[in-house]
Amino acid sequence: MADRPLIIDGLQYGNWSEEIFAQMHTGGVSAVHATICYHENFRETVANIERWNRWFERYARHITPGRTAADVRRAHAEGRTAIVFGFQNCSPIEDDIGLIEIVHTLGARFMQLSYNNQSLLATGCYEAEDPGITRFGRQAIAEMNRVGLVIDMSHSAERSTLEAIELSERPIAITHANPASWHPARRNKSDDVLRALGESGGMLGFSTYPHHLRAGGNCTVDEFCAMIADTAELMGIDHIGIGSDLCQNQPDSVVEWMRVGRWSKEADYGEGSADNPGFPPQPPWFGDNTDFVNLIDGLTAAGFGAEETAKVMGGNWLSFFERSFGPV
Amino acid sequence: MADRPLIIDGLQYGNWSEEIFAQMHTGGVSAVHATICYHENFRETVANIERWNRWFERYARHITPGRTAADVRRAHAEGRTAIVFGFQNCSPIEDDIGLIEIVHTLGARFMQLSYNNQSLLATGCYEAEDPGITRFGRQAIAEMNRVGLVIDMSHSAERSTLEAIELSERPIAITHANPASWHPARRNKSDDVLRALGESGGMLGFSTYPHHLRAGGNCTVDEFCAMIADTAELMGIDHIGIGSDLCQNQPDSVVEWMRVGRWSKEADYGEGSADNPGFPPQPPWFGDNTDFVNLIDGLTAAGFGAEETAKVMGGNWLSFFERSFGPV
Repeated sequence: MADRPLIIDGLQYGNWSEEIFAQMHTGGVSAVHATICYHENFRETVANIERWNRWFERYARHITPGRTAADVRRAHAEGRTAIVFGFQNCSPIEDDIGLIEIVHTLGARFMQLSYNNQSLLATGCYEAEDPGITRFGRQAIAEMNRVGLVIDMSHSAERSTLEAIELSERPIAITHANPASWHPARRNKSDDVLRALGESGGMLGFSTYPHHLRAGGNCTVDEFCAMIADTAELMGIDHIGIGSDLCQNQPDSVVEWMRVGRWSKEADYGEGSADNPGFPPQPPWFGDNTDFVNLIDGLTAAGFGAEETAKVMGGNWLSFFERSFGPV
Repeated sequence: MADRPLIIDGLQYGNWSEEIFAQMHTGGVSAVHATICYHENFRETVANIERWNRWFERYARHITPGRTAADVRRAHAEGRTAIVFGFQNCSPIEDDIGLIEIVHTLGARFMQLSYNNQSLLATGCYEAEDPGITRFGRQAIAEMNRVGLVIDMSHSAERSTLEAIELSERPIAITHANPASWHPARRNKSDDVLRALGESGGMLGFSTYPHHLRAGGNCTVDEFCAMIADTAELMGIDHIGIGSDLCQNQPDSVVEWMRVGRWSKEADYGEGSADNPGFPPQPPWFGDNTDFVNLIDGLTAAGFGAEETAKVMGGNWLSFFERSFGPV
C-alpha cells in the first residue's frame, strides 16, 4: 500500500456497512465524498448525520469525519478513510439561507444546487427548460462561497451550470459525470461546461456508473482511461479526479427514491427505463472500494506518469479540498 | 482594563443588540454563557443559532463564537467577548439522543436537564414530586459526558440535581443560583446540593436576578459579596463564579415565555406573582455588562485577595471550560 498514491473518491452512495468500510481500508482509500441526502429536508438530513455519528463511533478503526484536507491527510497516515459529507440536492437548506452555515458546521462540504428537477436554486438536467440560477440561488452561491460549502452541479442543466461557474467566486465541482462528447447522456457534460469548469479552477470527478459509460457495464477500463486522457487534454491535468458514483449493495428501492423522491406519484426512470428500472451492474473492473488499483493500472497503461496518476487518483481532490472547505 | 481579571459570566439572556455587545466590550467581559433556548424544539433552536451566526458576522468587532477555553483566551487577547451557547431546557434534543452530539457540533456547551417542570430527563424545581433522573436522562447524561455538553441543573429539583451530580462522570454546573440558606427561594440551592457540587468538581454561578437575592433589588453589593464569601467556605474557592442571570432590555413577554412556554393555557408566575408578573428591576450595582467592576470592588471589600477575586470573576469558569467542553 505504501507505494500507492493517496486515493480520494469524489462520490459514493453505498448501503454503508462495516463490510464497505473495511473495503475502503483494504483498498487504501483515504477519503470518500459520501452522499448523505437526496431529497431529505433539514431535519431528515440531521437524522442521517446522527446515523453517521454512530458509525464514526462504532467503526472508528476504519472511518473518521472528513471536514478539512488535514483530516484527509491524517486519515491517510492512520490508514483510515475520511468521510466527507455531501448533498445531491439543496433540499436540506429548505428555503432558509441561514441553514447553509448550519449544515457546513455539521460537516457538509458539497451541495448540488439541483437534482434532475428544478429546485429553489437552479435547474436540473431533466427539465425541458433551464432558466438559469434563481434569485435565491445567487444568494445561496455567495453564502456557500463565504462558509466553504462546495457547489456541485453534477445533476444540473447546462445553462444553470455555466452560470454557477460564472457567479461563484470560488471554483465549483462536478463530482460525478463524464464528457457527453465521449458518451452522450443527459447526465454527462458538454465540452463547453468542462472547459469552463477547468478554466475556473474547478474539478470533474469521473463516474463509473454504467449509464454514464460508453457501452455501459461493458465499458473496459482501457476505454475509460482513454476517456480520462482525452479529458485531461480538454480541462488540464490538475482539474480531474475520480467520482465513481459507486452505489454498492443498494436495493433498487433506493434508485427509485433518488429519481422520484416525494415529487411524483408516477414512476420516473431517470437514466433507466421501464424495462431496466433498477441499478445497472457495475463494470467488472470497478465493483467496490478495493478496485481503485485497476484505475491506477489503467491510467498507467494509458500513458499517465506516476505524478499524473497520483493527481487523478486523489492529489487533485486533496488540493481542491484544501482551497475549498473553509472560509476564504 | 489591563489590570482587571479575565471576566466570564456564567449566564445571561439579554435582548441582544449592538448596544449590549458594546457594553460587554467596555466592561471587559471575555466570555458570556448566553441562553439561546428555553422551550424551543430542535428546528427552532437551529433558527436561533442562525440568528447568532448573523450577529457573529455583523458584530465581529465585539463578539466571537466561544466553543473552547482557547476561544475565550483568544477573545480576551483581542478585547472581544466569546459567546458560549447554552439551553435552559432539554427541549432542543426532543426525544432523540443523537441530537446531543448534533447540538454540541453546532456550538452548545451547556444544557439544563429540566426547566421548572418535569422534562423527559429530570424534574424541575416547581414540581410537587421529584422522582429523579429518568431512563432517558441516564442515557443523555452519559452522552453529554461523552461529547462535552455540560449538565446544568439551575432550574431542576433537589433529588434530580443530587442524582445528576452522582450519575455524571464529569463535573456539572449550576450556572445561575444562590444558596437557599442565604435567601430561601425555590430556585436557590440547598447546602447539601452545593456541597455535593463542590466536592464533585462542579461550578456554581452566583445570580444577581432579584428573586434570587435577599431583599431582592434592594440587596447591596456588600451583602451579595458576603454571601459569596460564605459560599466559598462551603464549596471551596475553586468552584464558584458569576452567573448573573442578567436579562437586559427584555420585555415582560419574554419572562412569560420562560415560565409558560407552550405548556399551559393559564398564567404561571414562577418566581413572580400576579401583582408582580414582570422582570423585577435589577439592583443598581448590576444593570449591564459594564458593572462587573462593582463585583470586583465588592469582592475586594469582602476580603478576597487579587488571586481569589480573579478565580471568582472568571478564572474558575475558564478552567471548568477547559476540562468540560470537549471529549474526555
